[in-house]
Amino acid sequence: MFSELLANVRAAGPLVHNITNYVTANDCANLLLACGAWPIMADDARESAEVTARCGGLHLNLGTLHERTVPALLASGREANARGIPVVLDPVGVGVSRFRRETLARLLGEVRFAVIRGNLSEMRTVASGQGGGRGVDAGGSDQVTEGTLDEAAAFAKALSARTGAVIAMTGAIDIVADSGTAFCIRNGHPMMRRVTGTGCQLSALTAAFAAANPGRALEAAAAAVCAMGLCGEIAHRLLTPEEGNAAYRGHIIDAMYRLTPEQLEEGARYEMR
Amino acid sequence: MFSELLANVRAAGPLVHNITNYVTANDCANLLLACGAWPIMADDARESAEVTARCGGLHLNLGTLHERTVPALLASGREANARGIPVVLDPVGVGVSRFRRETLARLLGEVRFAVIRGNLSEMRTVASGQGGGRGVDAGGSDQVTEGTLDEAAAFAKALSARTGAVIAMTGAIDIVADSGTAFCIRNGHPMMRRVTGTGCQLSALTAAFAAANPGRALEAAAAAVCAMGLCGEIAHRLLTPEEGNAAYRGHIIDAMYRLTPEQLEEGARYEMR
Amino acid sequence: MFSELLANVRAAGPLVHNITNYVTANDCANLLLACGAWPIMADDARESAEVTARCGGLHLNLGTLHERTVPALLASGREANARGIPVVLDPVGVGVSRFRRETLARLLGEVRFAVIRGNLSEMRTVASGQGGGRGVDAGGSDQVTEGTLDEAAAFAKALSARTGAVIAMTGAIDIVADSGTAFCIRNGHPMMRRVTGTGCQLSALTAAFAAANPGRALEAAAAAVCAMGLCGEIAHRLLTPEEGNAAYRGHIIDAMYRLTPEQLEEGARYEMR
Repeated sequence: MFSELLANVRAAGPLVHNITNYVTANDCANLLLACGAWPIMADDARESAEVTARCGGLHLNLGTLHERTVPALLASGREANARGIPVVLDPVGVGVSRFRRETLARLLGEVRFAVIRGNLSEMRTVASGQGGGRGVDAGGSDQVTEGTLDEAAAFAKALSARTGAVIAMTGAIDIVADSGTAFCIRNGHPMMRRVTGTGCQLSALTAAFAAANPGRALEAAAAAVCAMGLCGEIAHRLLTPEEGNAAYRGHIIDAMYRLTPEQLEEGARYEMR
Repeated sequence: MFSELLANVRAAGPLVHNITNYVTANDCANLLLACGAWPIMADDARESAEVTARCGGLHLNLGTLHERTVPALLASGREANARGIPVVLDPVGVGVSRFRRETLARLLGEVRFAVIRGNLSEMRTVASGQGGGRGVDAGGSDQVTEGTLDEAAAFAKALSARTGAVIAMTGAIDIVADSGTAFCIRNGHPMMRRVTGTGCQLSALTAAFAAANPGRALEAAAAAVCAMGLCGEIAHRLLTPEEGNAAYRGHIIDAMYRLTPEQLEEGARYEMR
Repeated sequence: MFSELLANVRAAGPLVHNITNYVTANDCANLLLACGAWPIMADDARESAEVTARCGGLHLNLGTLHERTVPALLASGREANARGIPVVLDPVGVGVSRFRRETLARLLGEVRFAVIRGNLSEMRTVASGQGGGRGVDAGGSDQVTEGTLDEAAAFAKALSARTGAVIAMTGAIDIVADSGTAFCIRNGHPMMRRVTGTGCQLSALTAAFAAANPGRALEAAAAAVCAMGLCGEIAHRLLTPEEGNAAYRGHIIDAMYRLTPEQLEEGARYEMR
C-alpha cells in the first residue's frame, strides 16, 4: 500500500510550507527535496498565511519557538484549515517550558491538525498539558517497548479521538494511530537519535505525504514514518568505520533521495492493532 | 578571462556580509570559505551598517524575511552604497507575498545594487512588482530555454537598464546581463535544484567575486555563475550510486574549494549576445 | 588525565542549552550529539531561563546577535549562576560592532562565566572593551605563535584573574588558562578555519565537558580544546583529493563521534606554563 503513497509524493511534487526552528530547517528542506516535494520556509505573520495559501501542506514546529512566530503559526494554521490543506504539528520539546505548553494549547484550540508527530513525552504533554521530558533530542528511558506497546497504542488512539488528529508517536517502536486503528512500526535505527532533527525531518515528510495523498492522513503518516525509518536503516548499512553521526545525517537524506516505492513496500515493517 | 577573476577572489580574501535566511546561511558561509572569501552574518539593525562598513561585499537575501530585518537590509544597503561596496540582491521567492514585494520595492527605491540574482519568475516580479511563481526552491516550467533565449536576454538587458544593476537570471540556461551585453551560460546541472540554497550560495559567491573585482560587476557575476554551475557539474560526476542530494550538496562546496582558475577558464561555457 | 574527562561526558550525557547563532546551530547540535551530550536550543526570553534550569551546561554565543535575544542571554546566565550550572561564553566577532561590545559588557557585569572561549582579537575586546578584528571566520594575522606564546599566556592568566573565568583562547596555538596555570595546546589543523562554526562547536563542546566534570573548568576546557583539535587532525587525514571544506566539516564531527578516551589521552599535545 505504501508504494503508491510515495509514488504520489514523487508525482505530485507538493509544495510544503514549514514554520520551523533554525537548527534543522536546512535538513527539513533537503529531506523534502529528497522525497520529491518542494520546501518553503516563511515565519513572519506578515506573510505566513499568504504563503500557506499557495502550498499543498503545512508543517508547524515548536523548536526554537519565538514570541513573534506564534501569530504566524496561528494564521497559517487557520488559513490551511480554511482551504483544506493538511497541517502537521511537531510539538518539539513542548514539556520544557510554560511558553511552549501555552502555545501548544492555543494551537490545539484554534487549528485542526491532520497529524501530530512527536515522541512519547511530547505526546504526554499534548494529552495532559503538563510539562516533563528532557527536551529536544534527549530522552531514551521514555520509549515505547514491546511490553508497553498495547498501552501506548491505546493511548494514541484515545489522543487521536480527542484531538481529531492522527497521532504519530515515534521512538524505539513507532505508533501511528487514528481513533480506531494503530500502525505499530518497527523501522528505524537507534543511531537516528544521534542526528539532530530527524524528528523534524519526519514531520516535514509527513506533511509532504499528507499533501500528496488527500483524505488519507492515517496511511500517509504511517508511510512517512516507515519511509524515514527505512532510510535510517539503509543509511546505517552504508556507514564506514570512520563515519559517525554527520555522515549518517547525509546518508539518511540520500537514502530518501534514492528510495523507490518498491523498496518502501518491501522494507516497511508494521502491524496493525 | 574568468581565471583572473577567481584568482582575485582567492588573493583578496574579501569579507562578505550576508543578511540572509536561516535555512541556507551555513551553506552560504561554507561556500564563501570554499572560494577563498570570509563570511560574516549580522542582521540586527543595531549593528548591520557597522558590520557592512568593515566588509568588501554585501549580500542581501529575502528568504525567511522578517519585519525586524527590513531596517537592517536598508541600513546596510545604504552604508554599502555610501562606501562603494558592491551589493548583491537575492529576491528569494519574492512573488509569494505582498510583504516580500513591498520590501523589494523599498530596497529598489533606496539602494543601488551591483547585481540582482534570481530565477525567471523572481526577475519577473522585480520587473513588474507583481506576484507569481511557486516560491523558493520550486518552479521548473518557468525556465529559459533555447527557444526563449533571445527574448529572455532582451528582458534581462532592459531590466538592467531600468535598475542599473547587472541582472543574473539563473535557470536551465543562465543569463547575466547589463544593458548592453548578455552572457548566456550553459554550465550547471538540473540536480542542483534538488539541493536547497544553491541559489543563495550563488548570490553570496557573486558578492565575493564583485568585492574582489571592483568596477567589473558584469564579468564578476558571469564568472560566479559559471563557477557555481561548473562546480555543480564536477560534483555530479563524483556522485556514487548510493548518494543523493545531501552528498551532492557537499560535493558542490568541495568542488568550489578545489576549483582552480584554470579549471574555471576551461570549463566555463558561455556566449555573448 | 583527559581520557577521564571525555569518559565522563559519554557517561553523563549532559543536556546543554545553547543560545547561539542560526549559522552554525545545526553543527553545534550534531557535535554535542557526537561527543555524547544532548543539545537544546531556546532563545526566547519567555522560556530561556526555564530551559536552562533543566540543563547541565549553558553555551551563550554572540553570533547573529539580536536585540530580542539579549534578555534571554541574561536570564539564562543568571539562572545558571543561581543553580551552579557552568556557563560558557563565545563572544563571536565581538569587535565588529558597538552592539556586540555593549552586550558583552552587560553579560560580563551580570553573569559569572566558567569559561570564555574565543580567538585572540575577540579576547582583546573582552579585555579592553574596544573593537577590532575582522569578524567571525576572519583573521589570520592575529594568531598566537611560538614567539608570542609567553606574552599570550600571561595575557590569558591576567584576563582570567580579572573575569574569574577560565580563558580559552584559540588559534594556531591554543591557550587555556586560569589565573595560575596555562595549558598551551598544539592540536588542530589550519584548515579548520575554512569550516564555518568550528569555534562555535568548540564552545558548545566546552559546555558539555564542563557540565560533565563539575568543579574542573580548567581541565574540562583544556580537554575540550584538545579533543576538537585532535578531531580536526584526524578528519584532515581522512580527506580525499576531491574533498574540501564541506567534507572536512562532516569528518570533524564524525571524528568526535568515534573519538575514544584513549585516543584523546594519546593525541592531546599540550604543555603547562
